[in-house]
Amino acid sequence: MIELIGLDGDDTLWHSENHFAEAQATFTRVMAPFLDDDADVMARQYATERRNLRVFGYGAKGFTLSMIETAIEVTAGRVSTAAITQLLELGKSLLEHPVDLLDGVDEALAALADDHRLVLVTKGDLFHQEQKVAQSGLADRFERVEIVSEKDEATYQRIVDAAGVPADRFLMVGNSVRSDVLPVLAIGGQAVHVPYALTWSHEVVDDADGFPVLAGLAELPAWLAAQP
Amino acid sequence: MIELIGLDGDDTLWHSENHFAEAQATFTRVMAPFLDDDADVMARQYATERRNLRVFGYGAKGFTLSMIETAIEVTAGRVSTAAITQLLELGKSLLEHPVDLLDGVDEALAALADDHRLVLVTKGDLFHQEQKVAQSGLADRFERVEIVSEKDEATYQRIVDAAGVPADRFLMVGNSVRSDVLPVLAIGGQAVHVPYALTWSHEVVDDADGFPVLAGLAELPAWLAAQP
Repeated sequence: MIELIGLDGDDTLWHSENHFAEAQATFTRVMAPFLDDDADVMARQYATERRNLRVFGYGAKGFTLSMIETAIEVTAGRVSTAAITQLLELGKSLLEHPVDLLDGVDEALAALADDHRLVLVTKGDLFHQEQKVAQSGLADRFERVEIVSEKDEATYQRIVDAAGVPADRFLMVGNSVRSDVLPVLAIGGQAVHVPYALTWSHEVVDDADGFPVLAGLAELPAWLAAQP
Repeated sequence: MIELIGLDGDDTLWHSENHFAEAQATFTRVMAPFLDDDADVMARQYATERRNLRVFGYGAKGFTLSMIETAIEVTAGRVSTAAITQLLELGKSLLEHPVDLLDGVDEALAALADDHRLVLVTKGDLFHQEQKVAQSGLADRFERVEIVSEKDEATYQRIVDAAGVPADRFLMVGNSVRSDVLPVLAIGGQAVHVPYALTWSHEVVDDADGFPVLAGLAELPAWLAAQP
């Protein structure tokens, strides 16, 4: 019997990764005039992001700093300051992008809230995530909003403890197997994977199975009702 | 009778603003070769930071992005990419700076924890603040760590509500009149101002009075004991 449902934010309730993918495409275009060969800007960017994760954590500000670092490195310093200004603007546009809910999210949350306690568990930049939660119009559906810097076992244990719910009555729903599914299963909770069309390389996990996968959040109320 | 004591982190428990001041001095030195007049780099930086606060929020990553923006603007694009790389490194050094506790903090918290519940209320970048809390070695003193994006009346009301404490039994202690004192007084709580040697311009408030001011956290246990 599920009592508390945790929902991920980015790419589960609202679009996020598509904005990063667009930003990366723009980044590649901005860099093109400074590169004389087929430099793989996106691979270099991902390498920089991974290297900086320990210092910057997740989110669009760290992404932007890593873009600027990559731009200078990949051009051996030949990138123009005008191009760097474009990258700064690109970063701001990511932070200011309006929140687009995924299809069916509003109705699904309304149905789930009828007989479950809901908590939003979202990872990344505090200020940006708070803005997205506020803009989403969904905040009132949740008894608590948890913006966390990492989604690991300790994080989920803290959340179920704070809610006073045993782990086996907690269900987490999200698009990342690495962040939303595996650590929850590890503490004895339940998890449903709702894949998004795009997955950031860092979140990709190979060969994971043993948990339900739904095509969208709209399917969750019926799935829950069908559980024994 | 005070039941719950809130403590600010940056410049109340550990040094922060001195690291930003050092970073600004380095920033000015890095920029000097590109400026032919007495351009006021620090004033330009502060103007950029204020303008970007709405998009970036508080913290070292937004500070670094604003430094790069300022560097390009104040030199009309003549700044070198090597200098921009120095600014990126400067930003990382801020994020990686070891935590230095202020004098007497450890002993003061031990004394306060004897007969009060303690909560840490700190503003800024989630990832960076979590790292500082962990490195400070003080986390176990607090029943809760609240990392918030803004310290306003709503934030403090939420914190006292979550703790189940009426506002008049809550005392906030911190170095910022604007963030740690005024909003707490506004919700009917109590506040003690413990000034730091440096105050970020954004936090400066003119003509504030009507609350106790202590020279350091070490004075707080005795001050509390002397309250009626």
